[in-house]
Amino acid sequence: MMVDGRHYRTIWVEDSGMAVGIIDQRMLPHKFVTEKLRTVDDACRAIKDMHVRGAPLIGATAAFGMHLAALEAPKNEKFESFMENAARKLISTRPTAVDLSWAVERQMEIVRSDYSPEEKAESIYIKANDIADESAEMCRMIGESGKKIIEEISEKKEGCVNILTHCNAGWLACVDYGTALAPVYVACDAGIDVHVWVDETRPRNQGARLTAWELGKHGVPHTVIADNAGGHLMQHGMVDIVIVGADRVGKKGDVANKIGTYLKALAAKDNGVPFYVAFPSSTIDREITDGIKEIPIEERSENEVKYIQGLCEGEIKKVLLTPKESPAKNYAFDVTPARLITGYITEKGVFESGTEF
Amino acid sequence: MMVDGRHYRTIWVEDSGMAVGIIDQRMLPHKFVTEKLRTVDDACRAIKDMHVRGAPLIGATAAFGMHLAALEAPKNEKFESFMENAARKLISTRPTAVDLSWAVERQMEIVRSDYSPEEKAESIYIKANDIADESAEMCRMIGESGKKIIEEISEKKEGCVNILTHCNAGWLACVDYGTALAPVYVACDAGIDVHVWVDETRPRNQGARLTAWELGKHGVPHTVIADNAGGHLMQHGMVDIVIVGADRVGKKGDVANKIGTYLKALAAKDNGVPFYVAFPSSTIDREITDGIKEIPIEERSENEVKYIQGLCEGEIKKVLLTPKESPAKNYAFDVTPARLITGYITEKGVFESGTEF
Repeated sequence: MMVDGRHYRTIWVEDSGMAVGIIDQRMLPHKFVTEKLRTVDDACRAIKDMHVRGAPLIGATAAFGMHLAALEAPKNEKFESFMENAARKLISTRPTAVDLSWAVERQMEIVRSDYSPEEKAESIYIKANDIADESAEMCRMIGESGKKIIEEISEKKEGCVNILTHCNAGWLACVDYGTALAPVYVACDAGIDVHVWVDETRPRNQGARLTAWELGKHGVPHTVIADNAGGHLMQHGMVDIVIVGADRVGKKGDVANKIGTYLKALAAKDNGVPFYVAFPSSTIDREITDGIKEIPIEERSENEVKYIQGLCEGEIKKVLLTPKESPAKNYAFDVTPARLITGYITEKGVFESGTEF
Repeated sequence: MMVDGRHYRTIWVEDSGMAVGIIDQRMLPHKFVTEKLRTVDDACRAIKDMHVRGAPLIGATAAFGMHLAALEAPKNEKFESFMENAARKLISTRPTAVDLSWAVERQMEIVRSDYSPEEKAESIYIKANDIADESAEMCRMIGESGKKIIEEISEKKEGCVNILTHCNAGWLACVDYGTALAPVYVACDAGIDVHVWVDETRPRNQGARLTAWELGKHGVPHTVIADNAGGHLMQHGMVDIVIVGADRVGKKGDVANKIGTYLKALAAKDNGVPFYVAFPSSTIDREITDGIKEIPIEERSENEVKYIQGLCEGEIKKVLLTPKESPAKNYAFDVTPARLITGYITEKGVFESGTEF
């Protein structure tokens, strides 16, 4: 999407393929810093230290990481073992990310083929570009599916369509477009009058930091709110639709997503506001029958609740919010039961509530 | 309640009545600073600049402010006009605070009486102490009412009673005990095993800053959580009861309280967790029939959402959380409809859902 009038993806080829460009997202929204990755170790560091985040972008970065490894690898009988080692390093950066191991595995299929090392390196480069392009196209299709819902709301009301979103399921988490935000971008680019309520999304503030930044840069009208505010807005008719992303969708439609999503779904149900979840269909996990009982919820460091980072006198600083001695708990996700969800927006179209995947 | 082994109220007499002590709450939880007020202007500043906050404490501070004014006032025919002027100054500090004007008016009744200036000053001093004592006693009685509910839960389960609260309705907002936290303190002091989930309460973080501090200092086990986490905790049986305070209670039981309260009430209802509201019965506003339609919701500065204060390298600093250009909205309260509330804990006892006040 656009940044200061120029089109960006979150990952791109530099120096005729000899390097890969990314945005160092740790500095956002305060500084827009791009970075060149030249080696597989650069790619590992970018994933591990969260210069890049979001499952689709991590997948694309790993695919390009394998390309950088292939550039470095000796083009002889040691090629395969060098690449196997690179694959292991990449996979170990964020062990729970499914897109990461999937992308690395696609590259390893090429490594294990009968081609010469040079041919393999060439194919790996093409595949990395394909993976990024497919990911962007998948998100664009999610956007097209969701745009129709926004358009229908727009046709029935005066003024702008107010969309509430939680966390960052935007282009910064993907290669382009995003998942929950893809319908917003597609609708906005088609001239539909939209406005986004951006939940700040404590404790890691992906909404306040990333969603607000990317919407602002693309020129989408938006307003940041505390996570506490959404219920009040819905009670007073200030939200027309909620669209969120998903980390995992069970076969009966339960959705694991950023902590706090469930509270917004309850408020939407209580006020008759449509609540949609947008994701690529690869997010569906047919092993899951009862999301609340079966989806394990990651617990992260209490310091993400106790401390927060922001800009102070031109520098990015971390401040303590709580008494130093008070313990904190930090559950990263919650599960929204299918009964609270109006529909599912995917690249294959929109599925109604009650769909069995 | 206790601070480092010593009993404190939030306001007390110093120097045999020649000064009034308060806690400068702006420094909490990072620094425990007490302050002596010697003049009515000191009291005005303490209220206006939020050294003290919470309706009952503001009322008590105003009552003592009138006492400090009476110490300063000429003990002749100019006494009454001096005191009228002091009353005006105090009332103008926080114009919407009902407890403030009520406390000042009680002192003005003495000012307008037939006693001599010396006798009036004496009576005003006694009245200020009475107002503080009554306020503390009122909260203690709320605590006794609510303790029974916690005790009943405790008798039916193994291990501690997990109580979730939102914002700060503790002793720091009152003279002692608090409203929502009074049952917790009374239960804890009676040896009942309790643990409190403390919602951080964005944007002003009264939970993370004040509730966590006062519970910790009194020795009550507690854990700070992001406001987003409560629904997940309730889905997994980790909350036995929710107790919150109230800013205004309508005659049919709708409750205006800190923004985000409504979301917790929805989650409690969805998971069969009892949801109680604790307040002195003076909080009831019989003019309000439909809380959502009729209670006006204060909108505060967007900077409370965009910036946050915390401790950084030993100093209290403010950091920017959002893109500088992104607008934010800051609704201070929301309304929880009576249908989501299990009961009302007051100094007169506990009232069931459906009570008409």
